[in-house]
Amino acid sequence: MKNYKIIEVKESIFKQNDQDANLLRKKLKDQHTFLLNLMASPGAGKTTTLIQILSILKSKLKIGVMEADIDSDVDAKKILENTGIDSIQLHTGGMCHLTAHMTEQGIDALDDHYDFLVLENVGNLVCPAEFDTGSHLNAAILSVPEGDDKPLKYPLMFQVCDLVIINKIDVAPYFDFDFAKAKENILMRNPNAKIFCISAKTGEGCQELANYLLSIID
Amino acid sequence: MKNYKIIEVKESIFKQNDQDANLLRKKLKDQHTFLLNLMASPGAGKTTTLIQILSILKSKLKIGVMEADIDSDVDAKKILENTGIDSIQLHTGGMCHLTAHMTEQGIDALDDHYDFLVLENVGNLVCPAEFDTGSHLNAAILSVPEGDDKPLKYPLMFQVCDLVIINKIDVAPYFDFDFAKAKENILMRNPNAKIFCISAKTGEGCQELANYLLSIID
Repeated sequence: MKNYKIIEVKESIFKQNDQDANLLRKKLKDQHTFLLNLMASPGAGKTTTLIQILSILKSKLKIGVMEADIDSDVDAKKILENTGIDSIQLHTGGMCHLTAHMTEQGIDALDDHYDFLVLENVGNLVCPAEFDTGSHLNAAILSVPEGDDKPLKYPLMFQVCDLVIINKIDVAPYFDFDFAKAKENILMRNPNAKIFCISAKTGEGCQELANYLLSIID
Repeated sequence: MKNYKIIEVKESIFKQNDQDANLLRKKLKDQHTFLLNLMASPGAGKTTTLIQILSILKSKLKIGVMEADIDSDVDAKKILENTGIDSIQLHTGGMCHLTAHMTEQGIDALDDHYDFLVLENVGNLVCPAEFDTGSHLNAAILSVPEGDDKPLKYPLMFQVCDLVIINKIDVAPYFDFDFAKAKENILMRNPNAKIFCISAKTGEGCQELANYLLSIID
């Protein structure tokens, strides 16, 4: 009985969110703005990856970044200091994910026209996958130290992402991470997923990832 | 208005859960069973840490393990194969955390008397911290590759944990992880937190951690 109640509540939240997300996606498309929703575990390297990729893309696109966090503003500051790109911090006030409504509030706060908007979601492989933010592309980062089995344990995350970035390949020699197995597990969840292997620390693979993003934004 | 609705729902779930948790905690205490709730990010090394610690403790205590996951049963199998300890897998069916009610269902399914029960929560630094499982001790693992700033970004997790295990110290030379800073950030959230540094891979520090657990269970 208790579980049933929770599920009912969640369903009504999802329905409202899906409507909000579809409206936001269409509105952004009409304005020629591409929205990327970037998700990952805590510490997988979301912000460092963004710094690398956006540094490459900023001469070609007008970019804005929204950094979501439960608390703290370290990420938005890091983006601004390292790239000079407009960035705002969204505090979720304890919430474990972003909704389309919260995303729209962030876009309104940025208050300018952008070709490319990036939403760095809360560090969490579970809840953010359940809420459509209105983005045109969902991407997940899987870092080598986390292990190649994560798509088995967090199925929805890898199901909803059409882009998966395997990060921290520079430390691969020190971990039991099987790249072939990781790719197999990712593709089992989403056969259409594009997979890139990078090191956001050394920059390896980042140019290819930036080229890919540019090709789908244009 | 939308956010207000969600918060109201969450409050009523929390209230019911707090009551369930207090009842479960008392019931277990009366049965001389100590319940540990172990939380961490995906891939921080929860299962490997348990294998090390429980292998040390199993000659002294009757132990049962509950492995929570969205999907898959790799963890319960791993515990059983590596330690021979009773373990069951709890599928949360998409839920991002465990409640006291779900924990009690797991304990009922184990269906025996244990001195020490371990609940490995869903890999997530956000939601599990919000739900009291009825445990006598909350513990978090912070792994070196995740970074020393995690207590700044996930305040509640480090606030509710009286034991914090810094894992994967064997790969510390390959990451920019400041141990003094990490400890400072942990203690800022909970000045009473006990902190242990270990490598679940090499076993370093695991005996000290096991000794500590034994001292508080007895």
